Amino acid sequence: MRGTTQVEGTLGIIAGRGSLPSVIARAAMASEIPIHLVAIRGETSEEIECFPHTWIQWGEIGKLFSALKDNTCTDLVIIGGVNRPDFDNVRLDLGAIKTLPFLLSLAKGGDDHVLSSVVRFFEEKGYHVHGAGQVLPELLADEGKLSTKAPSAEDKADIATGLEVVRALGRHDIGQAVVVAKGRVLAVEAAEGTDAMLQRCAELRKSGRARGAHQTGVLVKAPKPGQEERIDMPTIGPETMRRAAAAGLAGVAVAAGQVLMAERGETIAAAKANKLFLVGERWDADVDDALGE
Amino acid sequence: MRGTTQVEGTLGIIAGRGSLPSVIARAAMASEIPIHLVAIRGETSEEIECFPHTWIQWGEIGKLFSALKDNTCTDLVIIGGVNRPDFDNVRLDLGAIKTLPFLLSLAKGGDDHVLSSVVRFFEEKGYHVHGAGQVLPELLADEGKLSTKAPSAEDKADIATGLEVVRALGRHDIGQAVVVAKGRVLAVEAAEGTDAMLQRCAELRKSGRARGAHQTGVLVKAPKPGQEERIDMPTIGPETMRRAAAAGLAGVAVAAGQVLMAERGETIAAAKANKLFLVGERWDADVDDALGE
Repeated sequence: MRGTTQVEGTLGIIAGRGSLPSVIARAAMASEIPIHLVAIRGETSEEIECFPHTWIQWGEIGKLFSALKDNTCTDLVIIGGVNRPDFDNVRLDLGAIKTLPFLLSLAKGGDDHVLSSVVRFFEEKGYHVHGAGQVLPELLADEGKLSTKAPSAEDKADIATGLEVVRALGRHDIGQAVVVAKGRVLAVEAAEGTDAMLQRCAELRKSGRARGAHQTGVLVKAPKPGQEERIDMPTIGPETMRRAAAAGLAGVAVAAGQVLMAERGETIAAAKANKLFLVGERWDADVDDALGE
Repeated sequence: MRGTTQVEGTLGIIAGRGSLPSVIARAAMASEIPIHLVAIRGETSEEIECFPHTWIQWGEIGKLFSALKDNTCTDLVIIGGVNRPDFDNVRLDLGAIKTLPFLLSLAKGGDDHVLSSVVRFFEEKGYHVHGAGQVLPELLADEGKLSTKAPSAEDKADIATGLEVVRALGRHDIGQAVVVAKGRVLAVEAAEGTDAMLQRCAELRKSGRARGAHQTGVLVKAPKPGQEERIDMPTIGPETMRRAAAAGLAGVAVAAGQVLMAERGETIAAAKANKLFLVGERWDADVDDALGE
């Protein structure tokens, strides 16, 4: 299911926050895939202006679809988080008014509910929504040892615990990441994001509330079961490595083939520089009975 | 199981951090239960010096048992968190050397594992370990509406989600509390504690990453299934209410009879002053199949 997807015509990239949209745009151009970005004022970084693009305001759904149509985009990648719109500050154009029931439905429910709705919304209008990793599989973390260091037996036990906990949490549409050190779950990611969770672990360690020598514990990142992976794939980058090191962890484990590592070279270099292990763990998305016993 | 426990002789209180040891000592004296506190330098507040007490250093296990014996304490309450000892700075007395394998076993595993070991350790030496709520049941949150405001239908749905998530997490020895707003799990408590989690929710809301009007969402607090409730009972107090209000929540729900509300009057007053609902929810500790379906 993660084989390369052939894009017809121009790839539309709906661009959210952060550096991911630019990274993906650059990778697509390197693969000679023509692109057009739709960027959201106040969300998307101005970096994207070096690629073909259209700026819209939150709520300008009509303008969004015009941009896609004018650029013959029928295949889409939606990438980079967005803040949930504050409905007081949304500028609704005619296209938005028509889709108001949909927009209002976004105000309720877990992340995954919202993201699935977004995908369905585009699909109902005839677009094909792909994960960035489907179009550009070279951006996915692969299986096995990716850094110089290898996990110890104790690290491996923490990785196994972490994978199990992420699976369990996913049933409740929570988080993609946990930190486990010496069998103890130090932190669980919910709405705050991985960087904030790692920051918290660094503080716990500094305050003496997380035991263990420096270089103990592991960040585990994997998709939620049933996660809308096409637009909410877990992601790691060089900053993840720096923060994991600052939190005193021994390394990072991700679900192989299921986690975006868009800045692959920089990420691996940061893992090595910080003496972290970085491994891709085999992950069977269909195993869904981890809680059964 | 939560009926009042009769204490024979003097009640020994092993006192950790925070104000709880003093609150409990005061409640015990009000109930005319004689007490002796064992306080740990660097952990216990000096407030406890107004009660009969002995100071020990981390690792002075021999001195701990002498204090209990000299004061005819066979019933114990262990209250207030402690930092996991940093084994580099522990002063080991003769009693500690004898119990070294036990002490070292504490360096590994989840919270619940450690706490169960501590209880077992005292029990094997012939002590009876009680929960503060068993000795002083007036300190437990009771069922029903405890503040002026009542939860809305939406709040009730968030409470139900929160209770389910706490149950699910408990299987992995994680957390006692979650924040749910409009069906979305905003935050999960692991090692950082409830106050830090609420602080995070306040920041998420400020940064626009948690939606919803002010006064949306609920803090849910309940014991982990199988939690060693005698020494690690979830606790709320006036500060919890202030932080829940600062996080923009509508209210707080706790498992009735399973959550310590040591400063009852102040806690309820703080809920009212901050226009929060505060409810005790029926909680069946034996239901353990919430994850089954």
